Amino acid sequence: MPLGSDYASQACSMARALEVVGERWTLLILRDCFYGVRRFTDLHRHLGVPKAVLAARLDALTEAGVLRREEPGPARVEYVLTARGADLWPVLHALYGWGERHTTAVPRRRIFRHVGCDAELDGAGRCPVCATAPGPGEVEVHPGPGLAGEPEPTEPVGRALLAPQRLLEPLT
Amino acid sequence: MPLGSDYASQACSMARALEVVGERWTLLILRDCFYGVRRFTDLHRHLGVPKAVLAARLDALTEAGVLRREEPGPARVEYVLTARGADLWPVLHALYGWGERHTTAVPRRRIFRHVGCDAELDGAGRCPVCATAPGPGEVEVHPGPGLAGEPEPTEPVGRALLAPQRLLEPLT
Repeated sequence: MPLGSDYASQACSMARALEVVGERWTLLILRDCFYGVRRFTDLHRHLGVPKAVLAARLDALTEAGVLRREEPGPARVEYVLTARGADLWPVLHALYGWGERHTTAVPRRRIFRHVGCDAELDGAGRCPVCATAPGPGEVEVHPGPGLAGEPEPTEPVGRALLAPQRLLEPLT
Repeated sequence: MPLGSDYASQACSMARALEVVGERWTLLILRDCFYGVRRFTDLHRHLGVPKAVLAARLDALTEAGVLRREEPGPARVEYVLTARGADLWPVLHALYGWGERHTTAVPRRRIFRHVGCDAELDGAGRCPVCATAPGPGEVEVHPGPGLAGEPEPTEPVGRALLAPQRLLEPLT
């Protein structure tokens, strides 16, 4: 499936960005990639996205240079964020912050912490200790109090995310 | 058209946010709302979005409390960002910044400036003079050098954006 080109009449950089990441599911797939999910099966089980859609999105993101397809072993394929993809972190964190402030979801299911300062990022993605906006490689996602009322996850990604995880590193 | 609920299995705040703003065209419509475009006809002509899609998106955004529908005169309807909607500015600016850095569009078609400091925002939406991330009410969009090679716009919104415009204020 080619990248969306619905916005061809819109020359602006936001339209160009949305041609790459504006398809349904794309940003949630990328969120999981930041969490270190790399395999098709894990993405499929954690997101519940139809396989055909997931395959199309992964192909498009690879073609756009946002993900890199790796084959670390026989019959093993992984999708890894490139530097270009990792630079989407501010977009994802901004969406997350808006969702936290304005949607009716239980807030603070996940908490993002700056590893170097051991401090929680604020709503703008900044560390209150060092006053920088750390890149995703310096950020850990932690389970938050909002998870407390939920049933124990049954699939591997949900279970792994019950422990702190450094973003971009393979989920353990 | 109801808000997308494709992400029902995803409790995270990013999924909730994408249920509100993740539909195709929605973020570009909101970009124009930040520029001060308020009328259906102007949005339609500037974006080239099909009328039925535009109507559905405006209804959904109004229902979600992101836009407010106003009737400032007989047979005149305007869509105005609420505080909740205006709080999406960091999301839009982050997408814009990523598009500027990573897409092949001509960069710097639009420039965002902090009015108080008369300085251009950096890629993270921060003012280099006062080191804050100003809200959209303190930001102006200016035509940038990237517009130079383009034909003169023929529709009113494109023409209005050839002059600096304070975000959120009605486009003049």
